[in-house]
Amino acid sequence: MLSVPSTPPPKSKILVLGAGNFGSCLADHLGNSDHDVFMWSREAQLVEYFNKHHRNPDYLKDHHFSTNIHAVGPEIPSKESMKQMDVLLFAIPTQGIRETLIKLQPNFDRENLPLLIFVNKGIETDTQALTLEIIADTCGSAIARAATFISGPSFANEIVRRQPTSVSVASLTESQAKKASEIFHQPWFRCYTGSDPIGLELAGALKNVYAIATGLADGLGFENNTRAGLITRGLAEMTRIGTAYGASPLTFMGLAGVGDLFLTCSSPTSRNYTVGYRLGKGEPLEDIIKTLGSVAEGVTTAKGLKKIIDEMQVSAPLANGIYALLYEGKDLHEGIQELMCRPPSRELDLPEKAGEPAKRLMLKLGLNT
Amino acid sequence: MLSVPSTPPPKSKILVLGAGNFGSCLADHLGNSDHDVFMWSREAQLVEYFNKHHRNPDYLKDHHFSTNIHAVGPEIPSKESMKQMDVLLFAIPTQGIRETLIKLQPNFDRENLPLLIFVNKGIETDTQALTLEIIADTCGSAIARAATFISGPSFANEIVRRQPTSVSVASLTESQAKKASEIFHQPWFRCYTGSDPIGLELAGALKNVYAIATGLADGLGFENNTRAGLITRGLAEMTRIGTAYGASPLTFMGLAGVGDLFLTCSSPTSRNYTVGYRLGKGEPLEDIIKTLGSVAEGVTTAKGLKKIIDEMQVSAPLANGIYALLYEGKDLHEGIQELMCRPPSRELDLPEKAGEPAKRLMLKLGLNT
Repeated sequence: MLSVPSTPPPKSKILVLGAGNFGSCLADHLGNSDHDVFMWSREAQLVEYFNKHHRNPDYLKDHHFSTNIHAVGPEIPSKESMKQMDVLLFAIPTQGIRETLIKLQPNFDRENLPLLIFVNKGIETDTQALTLEIIADTCGSAIARAATFISGPSFANEIVRRQPTSVSVASLTESQAKKASEIFHQPWFRCYTGSDPIGLELAGALKNVYAIATGLADGLGFENNTRAGLITRGLAEMTRIGTAYGASPLTFMGLAGVGDLFLTCSSPTSRNYTVGYRLGKGEPLEDIIKTLGSVAEGVTTAKGLKKIIDEMQVSAPLANGIYALLYEGKDLHEGIQELMCRPPSRELDLPEKAGEPAKRLMLKLGLNT
Repeated sequence: MLSVPSTPPPKSKILVLGAGNFGSCLADHLGNSDHDVFMWSREAQLVEYFNKHHRNPDYLKDHHFSTNIHAVGPEIPSKESMKQMDVLLFAIPTQGIRETLIKLQPNFDRENLPLLIFVNKGIETDTQALTLEIIADTCGSAIARAATFISGPSFANEIVRRQPTSVSVASLTESQAKKASEIFHQPWFRCYTGSDPIGLELAGALKNVYAIATGLADGLGFENNTRAGLITRGLAEMTRIGTAYGASPLTFMGLAGVGDLFLTCSSPTSRNYTVGYRLGKGEPLEDIIKTLGSVAEGVTTAKGLKKIIDEMQVSAPLANGIYALLYEGKDLHEGIQELMCRPPSRELDLPEKAGEPAKRLMLKLGLNT
């Protein structure tokens, strides 16, 4: 690896909530960058093991973690401990965010709120809410407006080996995104800021559905032209949906959009890609889900996305095709014939009247658009 | 392969100029779509061989071509033969376009001009002109305004095997792009129309420079995060340059942009990627060019692009880095350190005041912007 001098950021006290694959690698990165890092887990055994061996027993097992990371838990962090923190980094799955925030927010120091950073991807299944909305629901609009979000092509096992990685950092309050960027930025972990967390969140969730489609095409034996075409048309569809929702189309060109889409669609280790690939090879969905252990996120997202698409009446033949295949027993080959036989069209037809869901969300956040 | 019914387009008489890899595969596709196809080559031997065996002796050698394709040449097509054509498809390298048009245009039937389609990619080396400008220079602005351009992720050897392929089709006169799309469109060859040929041409040329950068990173041993990040930052840079030039940023999200970039950067068979990869492994450029047989297009484009970047004073650290490496003897590792150590920045900073080169070109084309 190249030797590049590290940049000492202003030293911060950071509480990482979650000790999974991604939480651990980010804790490691922040520890390496000389911050004081506390990593919370709700598993007592993990906390004890980590503090003794500086290893995570469940994830990135080969990696020896920076010794300035202290595991804490399993109790929810106290008001006193949270008061000392400059940063709270949420690295827990989207489906657990609401519950965690409900438990945690009474302990927030509202006079002197730490910087909140969220790195989860996905839509809340029952409500189709973005994390931004979950934050507003549980912590109030002021906290949601200041929350920051990080997303981009970033495999955890490459981050811990300092493989150069680049991410998007977005917040409705762009100065907060800049702060988060300053905490994370290193030569091997480059941060690019923006002000469209809605686009960033949608991109991170939707890409999983298109990863299923790409895996499917590969499983069926299609080659490079098809794969590149499908990823690009998937991007156009994501952008159309995002614009109809009220996001900026340009966000989908960024690291959280095309960057992560590209990573997910080119990686045979991606769970969503794998679901598609095995469907393409003719395996029934139930068998795939059974052997995969848990549901791949794109399978769940396809359902929530369908509701969003129908509500907005936006054209989304790929996402609709994946939904029909997963949930309506649609024949795969028939579905593909229908897609291929669609008439020619303009390339990037973005909706003119748009943004209803984002407008509703902005209203909830106390922002007029 | 899936069986999908073909769509009979209005039968046209098409003259394909050029019998190289891409010209041949497009002739084959059009022949299969039931058009009357004539493929012009300046090599008498190829013409004779092709008409006898329905095979191209130099490209796609395993492929048996549709028997309704007739090779013609080596003389330049006559006024009489051109008069009968509905479509002229130019499948010759960019550096040969000006010369060919100068020779050919006196034979154009200007009263009843056929549809002109160009599929070459690249910038004219000496002038940094786009093909649109070369057409204006040689045939006049009316013909340039009606010219159409096709680009996208499309390996020839996959097209002849009917692997599903999608392309962008653009023209300043969008009705002409629609006509070209109707001629080409089939379930396995999907056409998406647009009105930004300048963006389409720039994307097709610039992507080769970023393919060198991606090859380089792979050659140096960087992994998935780096590759996905680099492609995305390359796309952001292409888009910034294109917008400063006067193209629409959204064009770079399309098949001619991100689609082709993705294909070129993920293919070890791409010449530009290979140049980068071998540079990354430490081989000197001269040795690579010697064994590669001819210069990869990105190496030449990097030079013309440098002039465009300097004239427009647009920020382009990746393209400048590739230029310095190729032409200024810059040390590779030092160059990468400089790139990695750049300060954090906003993600998609598009130039506000922009479009001078496009404005000049539009003036030449008799269009006010």
